[in-house]
Amino acid sequence: MHFTSEHDVADGVITREFTLDGIPGILWTPSDASPSAPVPLIMMGQPGGIGMRRMHPRLAARARAVAAHGFASVAVELPGAGERPPLPGAEQARSDLVRALSAGEAPSAQTVDRLVLPLVEKAVPEWQGALDVVLDLPEIGERVGFSGGVIAIGVRLAAVEPRIRAAGLFAGSYVPRTIMEEARRVTIPLHVLLQWDDEGNDRQMALDLFDAFGSAEKTLHANMGGHTGVPAYAGEDAGRFFVRHLGSPLE
Amino acid sequence: MHFTSEHDVADGVITREFTLDGIPGILWTPSDASPSAPVPLIMMGQPGGIGMRRMHPRLAARARAVAAHGFASVAVELPGAGERPPLPGAEQARSDLVRALSAGEAPSAQTVDRLVLPLVEKAVPEWQGALDVVLDLPEIGERVGFSGGVIAIGVRLAAVEPRIRAAGLFAGSYVPRTIMEEARRVTIPLHVLLQWDDEGNDRQMALDLFDAFGSAEKTLHANMGGHTGVPAYAGEDAGRFFVRHLGSPLE
Repeated sequence: MHFTSEHDVADGVITREFTLDGIPGILWTPSDASPSAPVPLIMMGQPGGIGMRRMHPRLAARARAVAAHGFASVAVELPGAGERPPLPGAEQARSDLVRALSAGEAPSAQTVDRLVLPLVEKAVPEWQGALDVVLDLPEIGERVGFSGGVIAIGVRLAAVEPRIRAAGLFAGSYVPRTIMEEARRVTIPLHVLLQWDDEGNDRQMALDLFDAFGSAEKTLHANMGGHTGVPAYAGEDAGRFFVRHLGSPLE
Repeated sequence: MHFTSEHDVADGVITREFTLDGIPGILWTPSDASPSAPVPLIMMGQPGGIGMRRMHPRLAARARAVAAHGFASVAVELPGAGERPPLPGAEQARSDLVRALSAGEAPSAQTVDRLVLPLVEKAVPEWQGALDVVLDLPEIGERVGFSGGVIAIGVRLAAVEPRIRAAGLFAGSYVPRTIMEEARRVTIPLHVLLQWDDEGNDRQMALDLFDAFGSAEKTLHANMGGHTGVPAYAGEDAGRFFVRHLGSPLE
């Protein structure tokens, strides 16, 4: 892990950019985190293909919100996003998806697989590598949550990565069948956000995924407002979910 | 309105039993409510057929919880519950429902209609009459919410009673088709609680009802734990919903 920026402190949050094996990332830490008072960590997922630079204002706002609960957070650039090379076949899969949706049809399972699975396959080990090095920092404790972003990445991580204790997922993209199956093996507490009238999402698929999770504690919060219209109170509910499960030095 | 009990004050809540046109009810008021600082009112729905006496511990706990937000609350005995005479046909309809469920079948639409519609038809004007007299009390303000109970009663009230500004509904019983249609006319903010694996409920019907509501702001919170296993944090979320929409003298 190589920090590429100076420590930038504002509003009680230290922002540090880094690269890890050539992949850019950002780490946000409450300025009062210390080796004697290590803080929980939120792995902050992002939508696929957009890139951290364009997402930065929203990521920074989420980081400040979780820092208010006493949590650090980390984001890494997804495969194929920002300056990273495109994933093989991703462009073709995306245009197949757009073609299906333009024709008023559901995309085929094969299209969804080609769009999402290569991203999951590459992103998940990268996230795990980032977790290895971030958890080595003395001011970061071992209580880890995953929040938002491409839901298929969140499901795979929740199924395979035992250091993640709770996940807040955003049902906002298509889910391959194999990921649906992996959902049955997820047992950590889950908080799933669904925009009920999300024009770019398949509502029934989201409900089926929620049903499939093996977790004894899982909560679905469905709201109106379209894909990007998540109400502010829904974000606050998600914050309370992480406080319940990761604890907080501030509460 | 005829108060049948002395004022009983405990934990900052005044409990008063009353009868109204022969129907028993209970009014809970924060002890600091006054004509110069009137408080919002929650109409507290109950499950059908059980009766306020058996429900009293749970009703009183909900009343204390809403009083902590500065709200008064009122419950009235439902038609056919407690000491009130049974509704015509209710016993037959209930045994038809039990027979269908025992056979692993969905109850017919006719059975649901016969079970629920007479209750809605009789309960809704009674609730409206109770609202008339309770809102005449000087310490009760005009901000009114409806919470819980038989969801078909809540839907009808939300559709026809303009004094109700927000409703928290519990998707825990069957909904006649005509009530499903009335849901499209509901426009007030809604907070709908669904127990995902509720053995006595039809999940798809609950999702269809949520979809039908015409409200621009509607939120569905689905949780695990079976019909009676609503998690404590789900109750707290509902409390925050009412605080957002009815305001509170305490916040």
